[in-house]
Amino acid sequence: MKTILRKILGAAALASAVAFTTTVSRAADPLPSWNDTAPKKAIVAFVQKVTNQGSPDFVPVTERIATFDNDGTLWAEQPIYFQWRFALDRVKALAPQHPEWKTKPPFSQLLSTPKEEHVAVSEHELMEIIIAAHAGMTTEEFEKIVKDWIATAKHPKTGKLYTEMVYQPMLELLAYLRANGFKTFIVSGGGIEFMRPWTERVYGIPPEQVIGSSGKLKFEMRDGQPVLRKLPEINFVDDKEGKPVGIQQHIGRRPIAAFGNSDGDLQMLQWTAAGNGPRFCLYVHHTDSEREWAYDRTSSIGRLDKGLDEAKARGWTIVSMKDDWKRIFQ
Amino acid sequence: MKTILRKILGAAALASAVAFTTTVSRAADPLPSWNDTAPKKAIVAFVQKVTNQGSPDFVPVTERIATFDNDGTLWAEQPIYFQWRFALDRVKALAPQHPEWKTKPPFSQLLSTPKEEHVAVSEHELMEIIIAAHAGMTTEEFEKIVKDWIATAKHPKTGKLYTEMVYQPMLELLAYLRANGFKTFIVSGGGIEFMRPWTERVYGIPPEQVIGSSGKLKFEMRDGQPVLRKLPEINFVDDKEGKPVGIQQHIGRRPIAAFGNSDGDLQMLQWTAAGNGPRFCLYVHHTDSEREWAYDRTSSIGRLDKGLDEAKARGWTIVSMKDDWKRIFQ
Repeated sequence: MKTILRKILGAAALASAVAFTTTVSRAADPLPSWNDTAPKKAIVAFVQKVTNQGSPDFVPVTERIATFDNDGTLWAEQPIYFQWRFALDRVKALAPQHPEWKTKPPFSQLLSTPKEEHVAVSEHELMEIIIAAHAGMTTEEFEKIVKDWIATAKHPKTGKLYTEMVYQPMLELLAYLRANGFKTFIVSGGGIEFMRPWTERVYGIPPEQVIGSSGKLKFEMRDGQPVLRKLPEINFVDDKEGKPVGIQQHIGRRPIAAFGNSDGDLQMLQWTAAGNGPRFCLYVHHTDSEREWAYDRTSSIGRLDKGLDEAKARGWTIVSMKDDWKRIFQ
Repeated sequence: MKTILRKILGAAALASAVAFTTTVSRAADPLPSWNDTAPKKAIVAFVQKVTNQGSPDFVPVTERIATFDNDGTLWAEQPIYFQWRFALDRVKALAPQHPEWKTKPPFSQLLSTPKEEHVAVSEHELMEIIIAAHAGMTTEEFEKIVKDWIATAKHPKTGKLYTEMVYQPMLELLAYLRANGFKTFIVSGGGIEFMRPWTERVYGIPPEQVIGSSGKLKFEMRDGQPVLRKLPEINFVDDKEGKPVGIQQHIGRRPIAAFGNSDGDLQMLQWTAAGNGPRFCLYVHHTDSEREWAYDRTSSIGRLDKGLDEAKARGWTIVSMKDDWKRIFQ
């Protein structure tokens, strides 16, 4: 027994050594793709204060909840939300089975849109299109379609896979927060079942920590096997006022840190900021027309207008992608 | 630097030593309140096989999802669901502000029920009562009411706090699964906001791992502060066919182990059993009229009829509380 225990302890010490060396070296610069400007300093100061057991601002591990918008915050969203491309591709793939779509808006609008152009449908219409196009399918069938698409579809401008258009500084931020005991969640207006098949691989965020818009589901038996069938009905829209509601329904406690990039994230940031104790709210501001895109108050995608004013008035952290990030993509 | 690293490593080794000693001693008997009968053996065999990296049945940590019903599975549910007591107490407390309830069913039925008696309302009506009684309140106000009630209200028969009527063997099972890398979730027909204020303290299950029935919420500003107001509308009923739907919406992947005690859990167990790879389904059968209660096929609370037949036909594990548990309560 003693020998076994000694062996186990030896292995444990080695594992700890590796783990701690990693932590120590990361502690030297946990955010290497961030310039040493104000946002990075604010992030590190916040994390240090909530994890310092002697600090009056100490927050127990279980309450270290951080929520992240996805489109425009963790990955790019121009010239149109990537999920719109998915919807477009899906509607085109399914069109032969639906001759009526040729003349029925909003399907007809999508089908007549050239690949490079904006799609003149609202986010809500897009959600309805995706839901209508996939009604009757099981959750597992839909998951496979998303996995196949995300593994092959490429961005029309950069030619990259969409999952290669995630922001390297944000990946580092997610890892840094998790290394400090935070649980990281996605809270996105995008479809929950569009994100879950790849967020664990790409962001290290498991499906149970992804909150998004959703359609209704129905449990039923198909050939003696239980399935969850997708119904042609919206269940929840996780955008604007919906974000704090989605957070409460899924997480059941208020985040202490929230990260967004548009007016659609404002209510999530307000809800986060209004809790007791230390709080951290951050907006990613798209200011880099060379390495990414530059847009804010007048953009139809990811508009940041009211949120920018409120962030300035309340002293929230604003990341200028051009000035504060050394690298944008991986 | 070297000295700091050595100090860190020293602390790490100590921490590991403590952690591993605990694991080793627990490994001796992870489930001390269980008799050495078939259910305990089946649980241990399942956990060993899915955690053994050399086994063809090995399951990666991220997929070790276990879901537990609450009423009758983790705590008692007789003579009426404990949440019904809460509803009864709340309706009585709020009755002076609602003179119309005296004559309006189902409120009138609740108000005229003596404390010891069954309440002749359905679970769905109960949900509606709770939602109607608390509409307009914020989520934080409701949380405080639940916390106050659960800290003081006592079971009419045993005189114990309700949180003292949780099953010791199930607490050990939760801890055993978590020590083996499982993420444990509650999936209950009970109100999500009725459970979350105390599940972390009592079961070690944080709010984000509690799935339950819920009412709709609305984000709004009250005196310049954001609040989530409870609306008088049901959002989701997490029972029967609703359980797999709730699991998909919240967790987004299928459990590999599921634990219930009634026909209301059958679809959750079917959904769990139908996945690929090793699966574990268990029913707690209430067979101990002395130490707890004995009921199954004809009970109005926690009926276990179809589920019992299916469990036997499919070889799921059935726990007889009388024969398989050394102790019932803490």
